[in-house]
Amino acid sequence: MEKYNIGLIGLGTMGSNLARNIASKGFSVSVYNRTTEVMENFIKEFGNKNLKGFKTLENLINSLEIPRKIILMVKAGEVVDAVLDQLKPILEKGDIIIDCGNSNFKNTEKRYKNLAKEGLNFVGCGISGGEEGALNGPSLMPGGSRESWENIKEIFSAIAAKDFNGNACVTYIGDKSAGHYVKMVHNGIEYGVMQLIAEAYDLLRNIYKLNAKEISEIFKLFNDGPLSSYLFEISAKVLSQKDDKANGYVVDKILDRAAQKGTGKWTAIDALDRGMATPTIAEAVFARNISSNKQLREELSSIYKNHNFKPESKVEEFVEDLKHGLYAAMLSSYAQGFELIRHTSNENNWNIDLSEIARIWEGGCIIRAKILRTIHNALKRNNMHLFHIPEINKELNSTIPALRNIVAQGVKAETPLPGLSSALSYFDAITNNKLPANLIQSLRDYFGAHTYERTDREGSFHTDWN
Amino acid sequence: MEKYNIGLIGLGTMGSNLARNIASKGFSVSVYNRTTEVMENFIKEFGNKNLKGFKTLENLINSLEIPRKIILMVKAGEVVDAVLDQLKPILEKGDIIIDCGNSNFKNTEKRYKNLAKEGLNFVGCGISGGEEGALNGPSLMPGGSRESWENIKEIFSAIAAKDFNGNACVTYIGDKSAGHYVKMVHNGIEYGVMQLIAEAYDLLRNIYKLNAKEISEIFKLFNDGPLSSYLFEISAKVLSQKDDKANGYVVDKILDRAAQKGTGKWTAIDALDRGMATPTIAEAVFARNISSNKQLREELSSIYKNHNFKPESKVEEFVEDLKHGLYAAMLSSYAQGFELIRHTSNENNWNIDLSEIARIWEGGCIIRAKILRTIHNALKRNNMHLFHIPEINKELNSTIPALRNIVAQGVKAETPLPGLSSALSYFDAITNNKLPANLIQSLRDYFGAHTYERTDREGSFHTDWN
Repeated sequence: MEKYNIGLIGLGTMGSNLARNIASKGFSVSVYNRTTEVMENFIKEFGNKNLKGFKTLENLINSLEIPRKIILMVKAGEVVDAVLDQLKPILEKGDIIIDCGNSNFKNTEKRYKNLAKEGLNFVGCGISGGEEGALNGPSLMPGGSRESWENIKEIFSAIAAKDFNGNACVTYIGDKSAGHYVKMVHNGIEYGVMQLIAEAYDLLRNIYKLNAKEISEIFKLFNDGPLSSYLFEISAKVLSQKDDKANGYVVDKILDRAAQKGTGKWTAIDALDRGMATPTIAEAVFARNISSNKQLREELSSIYKNHNFKPESKVEEFVEDLKHGLYAAMLSSYAQGFELIRHTSNENNWNIDLSEIARIWEGGCIIRAKILRTIHNALKRNNMHLFHIPEINKELNSTIPALRNIVAQGVKAETPLPGLSSALSYFDAITNNKLPANLIQSLRDYFGAHTYERTDREGSFHTDWN
Repeated sequence: MEKYNIGLIGLGTMGSNLARNIASKGFSVSVYNRTTEVMENFIKEFGNKNLKGFKTLENLINSLEIPRKIILMVKAGEVVDAVLDQLKPILEKGDIIIDCGNSNFKNTEKRYKNLAKEGLNFVGCGISGGEEGALNGPSLMPGGSRESWENIKEIFSAIAAKDFNGNACVTYIGDKSAGHYVKMVHNGIEYGVMQLIAEAYDLLRNIYKLNAKEISEIFKLFNDGPLSSYLFEISAKVLSQKDDKANGYVVDKILDRAAQKGTGKWTAIDALDRGMATPTIAEAVFARNISSNKQLREELSSIYKNHNFKPESKVEEFVEDLKHGLYAAMLSSYAQGFELIRHTSNENNWNIDLSEIARIWEGGCIIRAKILRTIHNALKRNNMHLFHIPEINKELNSTIPALRNIVAQGVKAETPLPGLSSALSYFDAITNNKLPANLIQSLRDYFGAHTYERTDREGSFHTDWN
């Protein structure tokens, strides 16, 4: 019997699309789904010589070439552990399990270690691009041993999206949980950028009273320039979508209560836990949390009067500032995310190549954007904090003043700007050699005798404060 | 042999001072320290008929009246578990162990449950006020069973600080880990308020080029009004302290790198984890994290030019705005903290009385402030979000415009204002019934088919976006 190149477990939308993607690139795929009917329907519709279904895990396993490569595309959490428990006794040493689900990197770390004890290889692989990406080319972030990577490299490179130079949006990320970690930070950045776009929309409708269609046109123009990105592209589309249930644009009828699946929160928590700073990501999560408290907001809005502020500048000037300011804010958000990855990579000896991370995010994923090419090139030449790299420095010098303008105007116009403000304050703090933390240290020494350092001599000091 | 009222283990500065405080109120205290010499020196200096030292835990235990009450004042973490392991076999059912250390509430929850299995009572008691508070009256936040509270009430009420009405700054907080949880949020608020004060200082020295002494005078004036608080009082003192190692004021020689012990971070992580919003606390933690990266800040500050901005208004006007703006920002910080406690209390059926929390923070603790009396009274009349209570609503309406002014000015003057900005954006978001989260939901539905809710009809909807 001819053996199949790779197995895939879990035929939800993501799994089905990924299986079809792999098969379409000329690799043979064995698929399995816990509910057999789902597998049968999938095979009925899409089955061919490269795509074959199996009713039991044993048969799936037996159909695969050695070392076996099996993709899990099941619900993150306990389901992954349940499937791993079923697979462990029927796999052989050297086989490779690839979890392409949205698993928390901490679970991936545990699973990697547990499976290694049995001689099994585990690849925690981040995947971004949604259903459409899974089918036509996602961005892939595989972590685990380098040997595992060598075994899956050909298939994963074939199915991935392409970067701006036509190369595959996949690279070996690093050992153990590095892949899912980087995917988590990707999603954190996604939360931040979405919040920035939402605030830009809010400013335009609040201060300049533009309607959805008008804002869509502005975002379309933004998307033709340095802000060019999937999220601006779809924001422009979404804003011009006519409602099919009422007059006008559908966005105007959508409830302002944002849901979330947790990866933004994981990123912010992780950054806090490691002593790093991702304020724009944290603020984006807090903004969603506040938005979800609709009842309280309704009550409070009824007792706080909303003033109508006059625009300070012409709409054309404001839009120009917005374009530049958003660019600066996005650089700030990316910088926060990249520094978090750098820090964690160092802590874990993952040796993550940050310029490669920027490159594989150029295509396929939700945050794909022209700005990532700039970041990729910058990091390739100088592997340091983004703000430190000459070409980024130049771009920030020309765009930060605009960010300052829009934040100042938005603040006066009673528009909540947690994302834009935090992106700016991150910039103003990290480029500042004279923060007021000296006062904080004085207070800590006053009430807790925590001591302080001095600028003019080495050592720890305590003052007997009067 | 006459029995002693209470035992205390751990004679560091906090433990010694707490033991002396208890003894000075007429209660007899048995003390123990792992290193016997420490205990002997303590007894040599402070021993009297109410204060007796023991060399073994067995003797300490045998000296106590039943049910035994034993305060642990040892290092948070593993040391607490080690002492509990030693105490378990020698205590009897019904005895009460009170952990007054800075324990993480999650550990307190576990310890409470483990000790309950042995029939032992565990009180996780938050304590604030530093060394001076421990000696002369701290704010005490005891959690655990109500029975335990009834047994320690008399002593704890006697040693606590006094609120503005002369009542003890202690109350029964709630079951299990409620005491340490509330203490954690207290510290989170402390981080936020210290950051706000630091930013006020930064604005005055950056925009108006005031020196430490001049800013001290302004803070002294603030401390005579509605901002009256321990932290403003000591900020004024600290800023006027002459350096004993160089010319000028010591604050000017203190390195701008803020350290931390973790409770601010715990609070921000907890809020994120529960889907709540404490942006000002999180930003304060991020600000300390950024400050600690001194080397990077030095490098970056050398490549970003600092402009000198002209003040927009007279210093008197700015100081007036600062006074009101800080008040509004503090209300916002407190509101974030109180809402977090409310939420967690509901989740755990702790039935925490928020107005009592405000009251016991009026004295003894680091965040003690006149504003807490206002908050106490407001919450007593209306147990709801602070912004919803008429008297707070009135104060915010008269002070938020000033906060807006100082944030807008600071943003233009390149002064990082993560605390003030986030306090304002929290206000602007939570009082806003038209957030741009509708756009976020559209995008999520576009790329992930996550569905959305509508304002004009019930249900979940998905659009086939063009």
